[in-house]
Amino acid sequence: MKKNLFFILFLVPLVFQVHAQQDKARIKAVFDEALTSYESYSNLKWLCENTAGRICGTPEAAAAVEYTYQLMLEMDLDTVWKQECMVRNWKRGRPELSKIVSGVYGTTEVPVCALGLSIGTGESGISARLIEVMDFKELEKMKDDIPGRIVFFNRPMDQKRIATFSAYGGAANQRTSGPALAAKYGAVACVVRSLSSESDDYPHTGVTRFDPDGRQIPAFAISTNGADLLSAQLKSDPDIRLWLMSTCQTYPDVPSYNVIGEILGTEFPDEIITIGGHLDAWDIGEGAHDDGGGCMQAIEVLRLFDATGIRPKHTIRAVMFMDEEVAQRGGKAYADAAIEKGEKHIAAMESDRGVLTPRSVTIGTDPVRFEKALQWENLFKPYDLKIVKGGGGVDISPLRKVNPDLVYLGMLPDAQRYFRFHHSAFDTFEQVDRREMQMGAAAMAALVYLYDKYGL
Amino acid sequence: MKKNLFFILFLVPLVFQVHAQQDKARIKAVFDEALTSYESYSNLKWLCENTAGRICGTPEAAAAVEYTYQLMLEMDLDTVWKQECMVRNWKRGRPELSKIVSGVYGTTEVPVCALGLSIGTGESGISARLIEVMDFKELEKMKDDIPGRIVFFNRPMDQKRIATFSAYGGAANQRTSGPALAAKYGAVACVVRSLSSESDDYPHTGVTRFDPDGRQIPAFAISTNGADLLSAQLKSDPDIRLWLMSTCQTYPDVPSYNVIGEILGTEFPDEIITIGGHLDAWDIGEGAHDDGGGCMQAIEVLRLFDATGIRPKHTIRAVMFMDEEVAQRGGKAYADAAIEKGEKHIAAMESDRGVLTPRSVTIGTDPVRFEKALQWENLFKPYDLKIVKGGGGVDISPLRKVNPDLVYLGMLPDAQRYFRFHHSAFDTFEQVDRREMQMGAAAMAALVYLYDKYGL
Repeated sequence: MKKNLFFILFLVPLVFQVHAQQDKARIKAVFDEALTSYESYSNLKWLCENTAGRICGTPEAAAAVEYTYQLMLEMDLDTVWKQECMVRNWKRGRPELSKIVSGVYGTTEVPVCALGLSIGTGESGISARLIEVMDFKELEKMKDDIPGRIVFFNRPMDQKRIATFSAYGGAANQRTSGPALAAKYGAVACVVRSLSSESDDYPHTGVTRFDPDGRQIPAFAISTNGADLLSAQLKSDPDIRLWLMSTCQTYPDVPSYNVIGEILGTEFPDEIITIGGHLDAWDIGEGAHDDGGGCMQAIEVLRLFDATGIRPKHTIRAVMFMDEEVAQRGGKAYADAAIEKGEKHIAAMESDRGVLTPRSVTIGTDPVRFEKALQWENLFKPYDLKIVKGGGGVDISPLRKVNPDLVYLGMLPDAQRYFRFHHSAFDTFEQVDRREMQMGAAAMAALVYLYDKYGL
Repeated sequence: MKKNLFFILFLVPLVFQVHAQQDKARIKAVFDEALTSYESYSNLKWLCENTAGRICGTPEAAAAVEYTYQLMLEMDLDTVWKQECMVRNWKRGRPELSKIVSGVYGTTEVPVCALGLSIGTGESGISARLIEVMDFKELEKMKDDIPGRIVFFNRPMDQKRIATFSAYGGAANQRTSGPALAAKYGAVACVVRSLSSESDDYPHTGVTRFDPDGRQIPAFAISTNGADLLSAQLKSDPDIRLWLMSTCQTYPDVPSYNVIGEILGTEFPDEIITIGGHLDAWDIGEGAHDDGGGCMQAIEVLRLFDATGIRPKHTIRAVMFMDEEVAQRGGKAYADAAIEKGEKHIAAMESDRGVLTPRSVTIGTDPVRFEKALQWENLFKPYDLKIVKGGGGVDISPLRKVNPDLVYLGMLPDAQRYFRFHHSAFDTFEQVDRREMQMGAAAMAALVYLYDKYGL
């Protein structure tokens, strides 16, 4: 009994304290290494400059596959491989054109771009009168007037929301589902206000989804300034027409790849922690924040482990997912392969919210385990990071089919400026700051280090 | 007695709750207005594009004075005026030149710029062998070798520090005092590694101070990449020379102005809360973050009060301080005028740490009053803002001479990327994000609103 008491009163706290000191030092070493290294940032520069336009199915995407494959081969990981998946193959064709044609205001060019998976208008384009709506309810009310018209969805992202991802979520359905609904009601084309947090001239693309058996129409994004102009002219001259031209087209599926690199676990090599980003990016930008930076952070976590001498107990994989933007085939292929091989996946993380200063690390699990994770709070405080509840992500969520008990790990960046770049030509390497990006990678590595060491 | 108990148990909490609800709504209105407005951001664009180079004593600084004066006149404030102060008048002259001259490596141009208040080299420049040191201790040890040489201070900002301002503080004395010390020991010129958090090609200027009665020598900043190259060549070829050319010169002091706009308090018009930024900026950039953005935030606080119907009890002033960068004459003139007029200053705030996403609001006062301020914590939580202890700033600190009990209010932005721009040609309007800037202004307005209403 005395021995037990001694154990509980002195040895347990002592062991706990020694561990805490060790963890504190390890995590500091990870941040130190991240903040003094230029490797990941330089690699992102190369990716942005040489594979811009890498939407799945393009030679640029193939180049990005090869580049990250070579990058990880050079890292002396235990295994590096490509995992085949068939991907959608949509091509934008020539740059789109659009003009507002008004008897009152004359003709005005406005910046537009086709939405991903949209059909084209053909070379001569489509010209029609417009119906402006803010949401699906309004669309439904006006459905008798829609045949032959262009539907113009003009609901802005709510700039008042502090959480910009929530503002995005509040406006995104008009892009993803609006065109299909407009087509159902007889519209000849659809134009959607760009999902941007700012008033500017960049159109922001993104996928739109049609029922393969339903009617399809050409669908476009218009810049926020263009949408404001169009709306203002429509108000005083309801007879204005919009002329839209696009030559985009979907071709048969083609093979592409996820690119995977792993460090085998020293104690539980069969238990896998996945860290992902997606390699494809919208074709009109460089995909620096979305999501070249996320890919580089995933690889950087492995490099940080190696550079600071962390030998993980579990197998840690960096996965460059393909085709997140269009049909999420890479994420599905990765989960399917896991099921087929009987792999045991215990946790997964993805970075796909911009490579900006991290504000929190996130944990998605049951309340009991989340509570346990809060023990790590002090370890994150020196980096001004909180631990908050979080969810999965497009690419890793299919892994819950492999293991319903899978823990989602994550990192939430400060996203105030994220929706200026997102899916637009403005998403370039110049918009990435090295320290912000490296702080994110270090936060990810620190969380994976703790989860690998202690579990939950 | 019963009545008192009723009052304490029910009415006080009720009143408190009603106030809390009111404050919550007010602060939300302030953030809403800030996040949906483009006025302040557009004004910053104008300032950057039309008054770039506005170090004190220049026509550009005079244009900035006139611009912000007109801006505030149009705002329908109670009073807008210019407050004269004599300022230093240092001019850079022609762009500086520098070459490393080595018998082994040949001649290599490196990016340099003169430090503020430095003397020039004359048209033919200065060429000499170098002594590289990391700090003043090393300099002291090598003092016998210094006569006739160029002293090269090469201590980097510590990239490992999470708080970038602390990393800046850890390296800044080699710029502010290093050249004077080198001159004392007989150096012919001094070159200082740029105070930048990154490896790049931008030289970062800033003031250096010589004893007016002591020996003065030409002093330069060299880009971090340039410093690394110079250091590497020096190591293998100690005989290399550096050639430096600058034509900068200090002219007699000239008059300039602080620009001040105020809203008179409804209850205590004689008690003043000052909100400041500095209008002057280093001549090689646009001074977007340092500190055009801070000036615009100070003005924006007044606009936000007006737009959301806040009538302050105390007088609130936006002050555009002149000459922060060189001799801080504006801050001193403002405090001197306050003493002369017997003004009562109760609190002051300045924004001079970049217009980036705010992480905290700060309060600088005694522990008792700070503890009281923590009652406001819940009001800042929706904006992911903490309340932390903070200090004054170069421009407002002289006000403690007016009132030793003055409360410092403040706002701490996420400064991970700040020292890429700071004092360099990279500090341009393009590096400013509207939402980040407006979040900062709203945080400042919210804190001033609470302090004005409740005091501490």
